[in-house]
Amino acid sequence: MQEIERLVQLLARLPGLGPRSARRAVLMLIKRKESLMQPLAMALAEAADKIRTCTTCGNLDTSDTCAICRDPTRDQTAICVVEQVGDLWALERTGVFRGRYHVLGGVLSAIDGVGPEDLNIAALLARVGPDHPVQEVILATNLTVDGQTTAHYVTERLEPSGVKVSRLAHGVPVGGELDYLDDGTLATALKSRQLV
Amino acid sequence: MQEIERLVQLLARLPGLGPRSARRAVLMLIKRKESLMQPLAMALAEAADKIRTCTTCGNLDTSDTCAICRDPTRDQTAICVVEQVGDLWALERTGVFRGRYHVLGGVLSAIDGVGPEDLNIAALLARVGPDHPVQEVILATNLTVDGQTTAHYVTERLEPSGVKVSRLAHGVPVGGELDYLDDGTLATALKSRQLV
Repeated sequence: MQEIERLVQLLARLPGLGPRSARRAVLMLIKRKESLMQPLAMALAEAADKIRTCTTCGNLDTSDTCAICRDPTRDQTAICVVEQVGDLWALERTGVFRGRYHVLGGVLSAIDGVGPEDLNIAALLARVGPDHPVQEVILATNLTVDGQTTAHYVTERLEPSGVKVSRLAHGVPVGGELDYLDDGTLATALKSRQLV
Repeated sequence: MQEIERLVQLLARLPGLGPRSARRAVLMLIKRKESLMQPLAMALAEAADKIRTCTTCGNLDTSDTCAICRDPTRDQTAICVVEQVGDLWALERTGVFRGRYHVLGGVLSAIDGVGPEDLNIAALLARVGPDHPVQEVILATNLTVDGQTTAHYVTERLEPSGVKVSRLAHGVPVGGELDYLDDGTLATALKSRQLV
């Protein structure tokens, strides 16, 4: 049954699945051959064939120059900078931001040996040049040490362009209870308190 | 990006993955297009095409009459009855049992409307007839109410054949600490105590 074993091994490499759950997944796939296994095989092959990275912003789409960069109804004056495509998806799900994005493809990290040249920063600088409509760059990197270091670095690199740079608000999450919050978040929320 | 959305939806149906981890999985797949996404698409298509159910025992394999049923080195006098193919795999991993298997395909369940005719029981009875070499049937259904009901039912149905019927030992799991065991397991282990 090397076909099954191979399938288990491949599935076990996905995040969130280990060998045991991969085995369960394979059994489920075999049970639902027509409704799940064959459609999944086709969807994977199709996505592998069609999906490419937008050379403008780093987003993933079936067309280079992705749907967001092409959409004329989106605000061309604002760019939201994120670490990964998954962050872009998360922001898109909120439906609040109607500008465009820029995906860095990671964060600066001395430990992992990731330097500025490894990130999609040069392309960002090219998008805020004098003949471009961008007025504001919103930094939406994660609130981790590396994410904040990266935001800091990008801010410095953007300075000569004169573009306005902002970052996401930090504070108590919606629905968050103070008693369960970590001290860092609580301290930030207190320092960034706003007049009502 | 309907290709990505479709892939997320299909992956989210696998056990152990929800929408969020499916999204992470898709991003990982796209990043490892050559090493993971395309091989997975091919492995799925191949498995969907080749894997079938053994008409003798209910195991999954690329050939009907599976490799275990065909293997002449395996003991033909013992059949181990399991609920699902996953249980067969778990027993095979131990390497202890060298007989053959019979997969019921489920358990009797009044709530889920599963009756004897929905399980692979008739085929089991056919395998223990007078002109067959089987001397012992080992019941390895789960220690759940339904699993035990099913074992009981199968035992009754096997009675006329005169074959020896046994079941897996129940007791303290290897490495198990008494203090953390449920009362039922502990009571069973006490009742089934063995002389040393």
